[in-house]
Amino acid sequence: MDPRQLAEAILSGQIRPAARLMRLLDDGEPQALEALKLLHGHTGRARVIGVTGSPGVGKSTLTDALIAQFRQRGLGVGVVAVDPTSPFSGGAILGDRVRMQRHATDEGVFIRSLATRGHFGGLTASTQGVVKIMDAMGKDVVIVETVGVGQDEVDVVGLADTTLVVTVPGLGDDIQAIKAGILETADVFVVNKIDREGARRAIAELQGMLELAGGREDRFGWTVPVVGVCAVDGRGLEEMLAALDEHWAHQNADPRRLASRRRQRTRMELLDLVQTQIMSRLTKVMDQGRGLDDLVERISQGQADPYSACDDIISRFLTES
Amino acid sequence: MDPRQLAEAILSGQIRPAARLMRLLDDGEPQALEALKLLHGHTGRARVIGVTGSPGVGKSTLTDALIAQFRQRGLGVGVVAVDPTSPFSGGAILGDRVRMQRHATDEGVFIRSLATRGHFGGLTASTQGVVKIMDAMGKDVVIVETVGVGQDEVDVVGLADTTLVVTVPGLGDDIQAIKAGILETADVFVVNKIDREGARRAIAELQGMLELAGGREDRFGWTVPVVGVCAVDGRGLEEMLAALDEHWAHQNADPRRLASRRRQRTRMELLDLVQTQIMSRLTKVMDQGRGLDDLVERISQGQADPYSACDDIISRFLTES
Repeated sequence: MDPRQLAEAILSGQIRPAARLMRLLDDGEPQALEALKLLHGHTGRARVIGVTGSPGVGKSTLTDALIAQFRQRGLGVGVVAVDPTSPFSGGAILGDRVRMQRHATDEGVFIRSLATRGHFGGLTASTQGVVKIMDAMGKDVVIVETVGVGQDEVDVVGLADTTLVVTVPGLGDDIQAIKAGILETADVFVVNKIDREGARRAIAELQGMLELAGGREDRFGWTVPVVGVCAVDGRGLEEMLAALDEHWAHQNADPRRLASRRRQRTRMELLDLVQTQIMSRLTKVMDQGRGLDDLVERISQGQADPYSACDDIISRFLTES
Repeated sequence: MDPRQLAEAILSGQIRPAARLMRLLDDGEPQALEALKLLHGHTGRARVIGVTGSPGVGKSTLTDALIAQFRQRGLGVGVVAVDPTSPFSGGAILGDRVRMQRHATDEGVFIRSLATRGHFGGLTASTQGVVKIMDAMGKDVVIVETVGVGQDEVDVVGLADTTLVVTVPGLGDDIQAIKAGILETADVFVVNKIDREGARRAIAELQGMLELAGGREDRFGWTVPVVGVCAVDGRGLEEMLAALDEHWAHQNADPRRLASRRRQRTRMELLDLVQTQIMSRLTKVMDQGRGLDDLVERISQGQADPYSACDDIISRFLTES
């Protein structure tokens, strides 16, 4: 199947060609890039929801609940489960992904896990590639779930149309679990496991932190809500979905809001692509004549310092590439 | 103070010049780089310990306990608390850092928090810069503590001579909290809060996961121990320190082991420096004539795709820089 046929099959909503293109992307096949170029113009219709939070807060259980609710509305759902610390890409393998498996036989749900940084871009561009394929195949909603709270994860999830940040009561000091970067990223906060002790305090503290961080209203006039839920028995799930819908309606009420956010997403995707491509060219230049190894060896033996070595590498790169 | 004077003052162990150089680095002052070049040849003596784990597992409390124990031995201690999701660099501000403040008046302890990626390098190179300054000023032990479990944090902590990974019982499924990337990084595992229910199971599960991941012995013949501690009442802290000392002795028993790890560290620092420098040059090229904004706008309006735009940017970069 050439890139054009592959793109057409995906645009007609077929699952297997979509999965195939994701594999080709993972493998760094140049034709995958060609297919993505063709798909790009047909994307931008899906509603992208980011779900993030520390490990163990129940992100996958909440994602599972979201899938169920969107499916009840008859919407097609795609899920990209991003885990940069896992060595596995492709299927849904890891422990926390197992919960979503009850949707595995539902044709309207397409779940992919993404672990490695890609050949064509870093984590941001790789995630955007998979989101784009799901968007192009006609999924109405694409949920991007990330494990962890590192900068990469904040970047990836910050690219969604709506970002849901999940926490639980009693995660050490709550102040530890919710870092400033995450505070700014959140459109909706969820405190999961509200059956636990300290739930009320956790919600109040979060609201206090949002006030402290410059008021709960963002620059588009959106007030970030804090919703308490218990994913296991279903308490609060409707309020959570209502908050997500409200944010989506808020974004769509003024086309500039959504457009501004998506431009930001495009910018980050582009920079990520460029960075990965340049670093890959650089590696090729450095691989010639054991360049990098020699430099590392010289630095280790105290004959050079990393800062001067860096200058050497860059001038070599610019003249040779 | 010129770079040479600054370097000399730091090498004589003075605290204020060291703090000043760290600020200059943060601010992107070129003289900071000059001073670091001069210091580089005088580094490599400090023992570097990395401490990582999910938010709320008690990393700072354990770091605090480590500081106290190393101080009892009369050793000078430096601490770099890395939090890439925080917008604050410099002092020790955030909630979880407060616990270390009891050492704030101890001249033998030097604590710095590091939030931003630097001007001269990303998180890896910035952290290495601060570690180097502490090393040069004569600290015997430098502890690098990172919040979160993202790839950046794994990279940063993986650069230590010994890496301590902290978890707690009942953090969702334990399998969620300990990802494969972290498993490979750990030299010593600590299960904190063993007064909690499920502690024994958590320790057993971790040991099981280590077996699964190819046996508990690494390629240098080191068996990764799992130590249960309760940082609050002090239980297990001595065993933890003993495990760290044992790993340090193991590394030093064969000079190739430590050298191989430190070469890896140098390589990552160098690549990080190069990447940041190239991206900063790229940004300059792209800032001319609204290059990036124009491209983003064209992509948003469907007149271009990010993959072709990436090619355009790279050829422009290579011809113009």
